Amino acid sequence: MTARQRRIGGWGYEGETMEPSLAQMVWLETRLGPPGTPLRGDNIAAPRVPARRLGDLPAPVSLDARDRLAHARGQGLADMIVLRGGLTGALPDAVCRPTTPDEVQGVLRACASVGAHVIPWGGGTSVTGGVNVLRGDAPTVTLDLENLSGLSAFDELSGLATFGAGTRGPDVESALGARGLTLGHFPQSWELSTLGGWVATRSAGQQSLGYGGIEAMTAGVELVAPAGRLDLRAWPASAAGPDLRQLVLGSEGRLGVITRVTVRARPRPEAHLVEGALVPSFDVGAHLLRTLVRQGVPLDMLRLSDAAETQASLAADATPTILRHLLKRYLGLRGIGDEGCFLLFGASGSRRAARAAIWQTRRMAWREGGALLGAGPGRHWLRDRYRRPYLREALLDRGYATDTLETALPWSALAAARERVGSAIAGALADTGERVVVLCHVSHVYLDGASLYFTFFFRSAAAQETLRRWATIKRTANASLVSAGATLSHHHGVGQWHAPAYEAEVGLQGRALMAAMARHLDPQAVLNPHVLLDARDHMEE
Amino acid sequence: MTARQRRIGGWGYEGETMEPSLAQMVWLETRLGPPGTPLRGDNIAAPRVPARRLGDLPAPVSLDARDRLAHARGQGLADMIVLRGGLTGALPDAVCRPTTPDEVQGVLRACASVGAHVIPWGGGTSVTGGVNVLRGDAPTVTLDLENLSGLSAFDELSGLATFGAGTRGPDVESALGARGLTLGHFPQSWELSTLGGWVATRSAGQQSLGYGGIEAMTAGVELVAPAGRLDLRAWPASAAGPDLRQLVLGSEGRLGVITRVTVRARPRPEAHLVEGALVPSFDVGAHLLRTLVRQGVPLDMLRLSDAAETQASLAADATPTILRHLLKRYLGLRGIGDEGCFLLFGASGSRRAARAAIWQTRRMAWREGGALLGAGPGRHWLRDRYRRPYLREALLDRGYATDTLETALPWSALAAARERVGSAIAGALADTGERVVVLCHVSHVYLDGASLYFTFFFRSAAAQETLRRWATIKRTANASLVSAGATLSHHHGVGQWHAPAYEAEVGLQGRALMAAMARHLDPQAVLNPHVLLDARDHMEE
Repeated sequence: MTARQRRIGGWGYEGETMEPSLAQMVWLETRLGPPGTPLRGDNIAAPRVPARRLGDLPAPVSLDARDRLAHARGQGLADMIVLRGGLTGALPDAVCRPTTPDEVQGVLRACASVGAHVIPWGGGTSVTGGVNVLRGDAPTVTLDLENLSGLSAFDELSGLATFGAGTRGPDVESALGARGLTLGHFPQSWELSTLGGWVATRSAGQQSLGYGGIEAMTAGVELVAPAGRLDLRAWPASAAGPDLRQLVLGSEGRLGVITRVTVRARPRPEAHLVEGALVPSFDVGAHLLRTLVRQGVPLDMLRLSDAAETQASLAADATPTILRHLLKRYLGLRGIGDEGCFLLFGASGSRRAARAAIWQTRRMAWREGGALLGAGPGRHWLRDRYRRPYLREALLDRGYATDTLETALPWSALAAARERVGSAIAGALADTGERVVVLCHVSHVYLDGASLYFTFFFRSAAAQETLRRWATIKRTANASLVSAGATLSHHHGVGQWHAPAYEAEVGLQGRALMAAMARHLDPQAVLNPHVLLDARDHMEE
Repeated sequence: MTARQRRIGGWGYEGETMEPSLAQMVWLETRLGPPGTPLRGDNIAAPRVPARRLGDLPAPVSLDARDRLAHARGQGLADMIVLRGGLTGALPDAVCRPTTPDEVQGVLRACASVGAHVIPWGGGTSVTGGVNVLRGDAPTVTLDLENLSGLSAFDELSGLATFGAGTRGPDVESALGARGLTLGHFPQSWELSTLGGWVATRSAGQQSLGYGGIEAMTAGVELVAPAGRLDLRAWPASAAGPDLRQLVLGSEGRLGVITRVTVRARPRPEAHLVEGALVPSFDVGAHLLRTLVRQGVPLDMLRLSDAAETQASLAADATPTILRHLLKRYLGLRGIGDEGCFLLFGASGSRRAARAAIWQTRRMAWREGGALLGAGPGRHWLRDRYRRPYLREALLDRGYATDTLETALPWSALAAARERVGSAIAGALADTGERVVVLCHVSHVYLDGASLYFTFFFRSAAAQETLRRWATIKRTANASLVSAGATLSHHHGVGQWHAPAYEAEVGLQGRALMAAMARHLDPQAVLNPHVLLDARDHMEE
């Protein structure tokens, strides 16, 4: 465990910040108008919500007000607005930190017997309302898994490592790194989130092109449910019936509590290279991504910003004027104008193999009319890869709100969906006269399609009104994802906020099947009952 | 549809054969004793089993005796023994060939209303009793999906192709090949088996190292179940809850009828190279496989025979004596003796990339003391890759029985499991004085482990006694897989014959969860009720 204190009502750890540059503030003001009401994150007080009695829980319990507040909500923008605006009306009645799977089972049993709900908690970084306590709900215990952590078994020859579900990203990597291995799973939340949380939400890391998503790394898993314990063993492959691990992956605490995960680790790569380029347009860039992945060029990351995101990055960049001028000339010579799109590409492995993949990508980008930017942008990105969420809090302090959402589609639907979903978000507050700025990038590519990641900005107001603006945008976005034929989420999950559209995602029968599994494993609906299957809109709660 | 006639009581098509060489017969006789009672495959007559009336089925129905016989059982050794020995006591009461998913739904409804069972049928190549009709069972309809076949939708940009579930391997490849693409799924049954069957059994092809198993290729799927229709769409990735497609993959007709599959196709590779080598021992070979896969050498096939299998291949080989002599000298110079193990390695892609991967493998094999054999063994293997099962029938005609079974394990458990399972099979008939010869190879490798594929031979006797011998071996093997901590199947599935050990595979709660899903989708247990969840031993039925 780290001694650093987690921030409440903001991302990450106390003391860490990422401030917007003057250029970024000018950029926002030009597009959205002057700042709105700041929603400041200092002095967030725990509301006086008395803890309801739950009887004896057979595991360490905390009733501390600040601990309860710290476990009231995840890390979505709405959570920040609610916490900063003093709108928090619900806290868990207890924070419980079991030390064994038996204690987990005992807590589930105890809660079932008194009609209480249990919300499993890993790093608490859900951005979909996945760990939120609802006002007016049954008594609720948040089950923080931090005591179920660390490496418990290691099979060197097979590269199989078994961890407690509550093990955080850096602790997973340091345990494996000491053995010459890596998991290769680096989501933006990596410093805070846990292995169990990754499995529960079908997380995808930034280098998933090379390493796969968490579902490819998960060899074995233990799930403790009210109905009993599911212990799925680590085989490299099996055709003995459906892959039940895939039910645990993405179960979001609704089917059981993930207590233990066995992962497939691989040799730590000798080199990890990341370079940048600008390509003439989004369409050219998307064509390049598709070609790279279909030709099997062994990269581990591909990321393409649209023109708006590219312009925003350039505006925010602190590069000296003389260099900017040179860059502009270079781009001019390559015929790249305002439609230019920023491309980032990375490769891992032996130095030789990584270099070869980077060279091949450079060559192909050049042939498509791209301008190569070398390793500088890669260094920049690597430095900030886990820090960007801190910027959101700094903007809220200054009167602007920002959030993200993401999806995935086949290649054939990508360009149209980017337009459609982007336009829908941009116009979501038109009735109120407020503007929304939308940026987009592709961050995960596949043989048959890619993800789209939208970042949007709008002005904050008083907390309740800001929450209303956010919910309006979110509802609009959900509807436009559904009508564009896009999945509700590539890697953020369903949680509470996408749940109203879950039936559109998997169909009536898909939802009914999921509900049947939940009924079997958790007949009294003790576990996180408002995610996935609760179709009511809890966005403004 | 091909005009060739499928054989009854034997593999594949009438007219196709693969005869054992004289050397192979000598090899068998030396190890097992003189041939037993031949179980001949000519003149198999349909038993007089009257078809029970099932009321009107809303789809084309055949009551033809030969058609019913052709759909009575799959392609396991036990099926051949039963059919050839005249032990067939059960036939489907009707063979139904629906032409639309609605007809499938209608047949399920009609069968539910009269208490009949429905067995979905793709290519009928199950080797686990996965499509077998049981004597004394409820009236049974076999649902042959051959009319639900062919390409129905194609998204060129995304490489997504939608086929009817009854489409056979060659038809899948020719439809994709005409568009410059390949699925890359080539199981040994490829000429006969269907896309829907591959999905239903979590099939893995011979080049799965490069292309992945069928679960990696399956983007979307439609499942028609008594409870309704599950239509799971083709997204490149999604974190919106558990991946429900993974429940259909491996469902073996127990949860519903797979009617439509959307697959991810990829560019047809320019080159496909396969070469051979001999390595000094199985342990050296396994170490080499593990190193190759953990270093990420981009091969699409790795296959390692143990010393017994290698010796058997050499004995069966028709190479002229002079060449054999030269080979022996070459191996002597490299210090490879009777413990030598045959390695086959393949790569696909651009000619340049495939060559580079082959060169790298050669270099590594040489460094481990291997003797390189060039492309000859690869040509040999490619020529016979779909023909080997024909040999089984030719041996049964001559008084020897042979069958295979397979599993997968982490690298750390591989060598011990090979010994343990191999010894168990070899000694399974010791009580009766009969010998069993066991060969083994690794055919699928993963980051964390590999498959083991056992081939065994024993003498046939009268049909009932031969069936008893086979069942004894099979029970012994199942028990030894469980006690070795190995999965029941890497790619053959569970069917009826592994079902008694399914609870040991997934645990009490895993089986209960699977049963809950089956109850939900098929409340009256209409669909293939004796696979996966029926723990009774049906091996001698």
